[in-house]
Amino acid sequence: MSSNLGIVELTLALHYCLDSPTDKIIWDVGHQCYVHKILTGRREGFSSLRKQGGISGFPKVSESDYDAFNTGHSSTSISAALGYVRSRDLKGEDFKVAAVIGDGAMTNGLVYEAINNAGGLNTNLMVILNDNQMSISENVGALSVHLNDIRTNPKYIDAKRSISKALSRLPVFGSPLGHAFQKAKDSLRYALLPGIMFEEMGFKYIGPVNGHNISQLINVINRVKHMDGPVMVHIYTEKGKGYTYAEKYPGSFHGIDTFDIKTGRPAKTKIWDSYSDVFGKTLLKIAEKNEKVVAISAAMPEGCGLKSFAKQFPERFFDVGIAEGHGVTFGAGLAANGHIPVFAVYSTFLQRGYDNILHDVCLSNYHCVFMIDRAGLVSGDGETHQGIYDVSYLSQMPNMTVMSPKNKREFKQMIEYAINHHKGPIALRYPKGSASMVCGRSEVAVILGKSETLEKGELIALISFGAMMDKVFELHKLLKERGYNPAFINARFAKPIDMEMVKELAPYEYVFTFEENEVSGGFGTQVMNGFIEIGAMPKVFRKFGLPDEFLATGSREQLFDRCGLVPDKMLDKILAVIEGSENERKHSG
Amino acid sequence: MSSNLGIVELTLALHYCLDSPTDKIIWDVGHQCYVHKILTGRREGFSSLRKQGGISGFPKVSESDYDAFNTGHSSTSISAALGYVRSRDLKGEDFKVAAVIGDGAMTNGLVYEAINNAGGLNTNLMVILNDNQMSISENVGALSVHLNDIRTNPKYIDAKRSISKALSRLPVFGSPLGHAFQKAKDSLRYALLPGIMFEEMGFKYIGPVNGHNISQLINVINRVKHMDGPVMVHIYTEKGKGYTYAEKYPGSFHGIDTFDIKTGRPAKTKIWDSYSDVFGKTLLKIAEKNEKVVAISAAMPEGCGLKSFAKQFPERFFDVGIAEGHGVTFGAGLAANGHIPVFAVYSTFLQRGYDNILHDVCLSNYHCVFMIDRAGLVSGDGETHQGIYDVSYLSQMPNMTVMSPKNKREFKQMIEYAINHHKGPIALRYPKGSASMVCGRSEVAVILGKSETLEKGELIALISFGAMMDKVFELHKLLKERGYNPAFINARFAKPIDMEMVKELAPYEYVFTFEENEVSGGFGTQVMNGFIEIGAMPKVFRKFGLPDEFLATGSREQLFDRCGLVPDKMLDKILAVIEGSENERKHSG
Repeated sequence: MSSNLGIVELTLALHYCLDSPTDKIIWDVGHQCYVHKILTGRREGFSSLRKQGGISGFPKVSESDYDAFNTGHSSTSISAALGYVRSRDLKGEDFKVAAVIGDGAMTNGLVYEAINNAGGLNTNLMVILNDNQMSISENVGALSVHLNDIRTNPKYIDAKRSISKALSRLPVFGSPLGHAFQKAKDSLRYALLPGIMFEEMGFKYIGPVNGHNISQLINVINRVKHMDGPVMVHIYTEKGKGYTYAEKYPGSFHGIDTFDIKTGRPAKTKIWDSYSDVFGKTLLKIAEKNEKVVAISAAMPEGCGLKSFAKQFPERFFDVGIAEGHGVTFGAGLAANGHIPVFAVYSTFLQRGYDNILHDVCLSNYHCVFMIDRAGLVSGDGETHQGIYDVSYLSQMPNMTVMSPKNKREFKQMIEYAINHHKGPIALRYPKGSASMVCGRSEVAVILGKSETLEKGELIALISFGAMMDKVFELHKLLKERGYNPAFINARFAKPIDMEMVKELAPYEYVFTFEENEVSGGFGTQVMNGFIEIGAMPKVFRKFGLPDEFLATGSREQLFDRCGLVPDKMLDKILAVIEGSENERKHSG
Repeated sequence: MSSNLGIVELTLALHYCLDSPTDKIIWDVGHQCYVHKILTGRREGFSSLRKQGGISGFPKVSESDYDAFNTGHSSTSISAALGYVRSRDLKGEDFKVAAVIGDGAMTNGLVYEAINNAGGLNTNLMVILNDNQMSISENVGALSVHLNDIRTNPKYIDAKRSISKALSRLPVFGSPLGHAFQKAKDSLRYALLPGIMFEEMGFKYIGPVNGHNISQLINVINRVKHMDGPVMVHIYTEKGKGYTYAEKYPGSFHGIDTFDIKTGRPAKTKIWDSYSDVFGKTLLKIAEKNEKVVAISAAMPEGCGLKSFAKQFPERFFDVGIAEGHGVTFGAGLAANGHIPVFAVYSTFLQRGYDNILHDVCLSNYHCVFMIDRAGLVSGDGETHQGIYDVSYLSQMPNMTVMSPKNKREFKQMIEYAINHHKGPIALRYPKGSASMVCGRSEVAVILGKSETLEKGELIALISFGAMMDKVFELHKLLKERGYNPAFINARFAKPIDMEMVKELAPYEYVFTFEENEVSGGFGTQVMNGFIEIGAMPKVFRKFGLPDEFLATGSREQLFDRCGLVPDKMLDKILAVIEGSENERKHSG
């Protein structure tokens, strides 16, 4: 949100200087593309922003020719831009390519891989580093804003070469004088810092440029677009420029729901604790007693409920930046020395740590706790932010335990279990939003790989995993109203699956599983594997879960409805299965 | 292999200066840990190196207290070391932590994330950058070896500060004189390059140091181990030092099987084409006719069979470094502009591109071809190099197609299909080693989502995916010898699954699937999902595949045997299932 107010001038300058859509502008992450969308004919659509059927909060190729690349997760723009550039050159085309990336996104390793790879390029590639001074250290901005005037002048290169040559002939070693020279040389570099990191990696560095000075921006972009080789234009902006509250509290206005423009406060008043809040409070209590507990965040302490922890235990809290892969392996290092790292992370972002979880945590069976927030369907952000793969890929990793709570009370028990009682890697997933109060207190404690039977029954069994309980609870009632008496089970664990439960349910005629995860390889598959293992199968087995497609923006409820995961629709499906099957029995029997 | 000869002196110096295992030495990737293993009591074990039951080619915590962290994939050492350091400081311990990392591993973004995160540290962390001049650009090594003498002297810091202050007061802007000064300043930095990138990120940089001068190494490490803050010690070494052939041909001696020490040539003579070779040749032919085809490698052009392509089409070949995530997103950019990128990559390394495949390729449905080499069981390297997850996680991604050939001939057809006929993302997986000649020519062309029926049958059906065909072919014969007549199917596709095949097989009594992939969510699961979808299930369904555990070193055949995936063992299991089931029928009927 606020990032857009910060780059109004930049967006105007880019569209003024470049011939989009022939020239490609690639926006890193979406949050900064709103001005771009308004300028490219989508102003009317803003009433439906981030709503079902409305325009996306991110660049979207299917929405407009002016969006050159689909983005959602940060730090991909330079890689994609380099792909465009290489392809352009091979085809002999001559459009310009500009990637626009925020300073926060620069903490991810993908950027480094791309810069490193682009370094040898001798053709045009423009990277605009939009530095709103949220992440990058101050010394990057130490030199004058006039620097760019010199750097874009072609005469500069020649001068540089000759002086550099002369310098290298100075005697610098061996004698006391040499040492003094060496010291001077060495000190010098600290006065010359800005951008040298990018220069070292083969980019021309230009900046810093005032991102709110549009004539200067136009001047720079017009020069840079004719330069050969990769160029990094470093502009500095103020997040939320022009809106007082956003300038003052940039953290709160990064991505935001409806708010009161007069006060800058959220429009909705919050009644229930969110899962993130509950996690934050519970962790704090545990950490007060258990000194081994440390917490890791990948630039999301607020979103994941770690703010109070960070305040109370600053030395035990580690924000690693937008660097999930490193966050995981760093946690493995902490665990190797006897700490218990609790990594709180959005499901969709944890995908970037896949290899690290498998090799650096699971292989050594380290006690690392993954608190997977925003697991399942996510409102607003759309395709790239659905957290619907974690159950599948984590369940396939040896030594990993995967669990999810039916409600707030069970969530607290599970946190306690994961941190204080479990050994080895464990993942606890929970959705965005208010912690559910469904189902009340549990009769039985949380025990590794044990489900909870909420109600015994006959013929039909419903097995719910995690937050699906809200819906399955209703579904169970509806089936009872129809005269059925289904067994009703809260699975708790997707891995290891409760094999006693599996044995008890195998003689049932109809078994249904429910999960807020892609359905082909998640929780239901683990249950099915259990049946295969014991060599006995219910007559009919069905998995309810999310389909094999990318799910575009909607509210959580809209998404559930779209996927057929609301009680009414599930009831219809189940009745059709049962009745179809009974009819078949009549005909054949 | 050759990397070990290069760091004999470094390893000796580290063990001389540090008190291991109290002090932690973390070796990045394993290939450089052999000297360390010999020094820490494992000399006798080297006859069993990289063999089943023998010592691992990588650091292994379970093997020795001197191995502080399990590694296999590159670039994890600094993250893990930082974890150790943070944990040490919280617990008030005082051991030293040293990460040893090669220059090749420095191209991966994880290193950057870790360095960025360690930058603010004010406690001891030592990173030894072992530069054998294979990857890092030459200018990093431009300054004198004496530099480190100055840099480790505490007086240096003070001198630096005062000179830096004075310099910053010079008038540098606005006037012509100012411009001249500015130019001089700017040129200077090119004479001062070495290490400044690391300095900018908060590391003290020391080097370059001659890695074969042991007294200098000891001198440096002894000083550095008392320094506060993160220190990068840059040493340069010669790969294969002391063995002429290895010095001369470093690429061939990086990781290697048995060779003749007198000639430096491989001990075994190769008879069959490997899958990698076949891929390389086939790609070349296709690329000659189809100009859109470009190839990507992540520092593995030789291993993946891309050497001839790189030679013939240098401008269409892109080696992105050990940077799989970037490789994938870069490919998406190429595809966005109309090229067909073919990314040849080992299965285990592609895991690092999980998020990029899902969001940057699949979401936009780009025609990117993933040639997944070393898929399945891999000899020698052990746990971290088994390529046994790709079928599972790729099949769960919308828009992705996953296939695997039964033999060499079909492999060629599939490459042709993937590049010239398919639209959208597609993965083609194949194992390490010789391309199979089993089964001969196919009767039917490769068509999206269509299996090939090799033999019709009754009662029993065997469905083989990819390279399992070698074993299933034998198994099929054994079953026929026992008087059974099983249907015999070559699946070709794991996604989309052949629904006609599924319908045809549902009435069978016994259906068995075979895959060289973790069994819980891979090919067999896709077949089972097919049965669930049509609401009809064979009486007995079993999946043969790899168990839910990390598979330690062995030859491919040893691993197959260990996992029960050899014809004899599979036969026994199948007969037990059939006979058990028949007995049950007799009793109940």
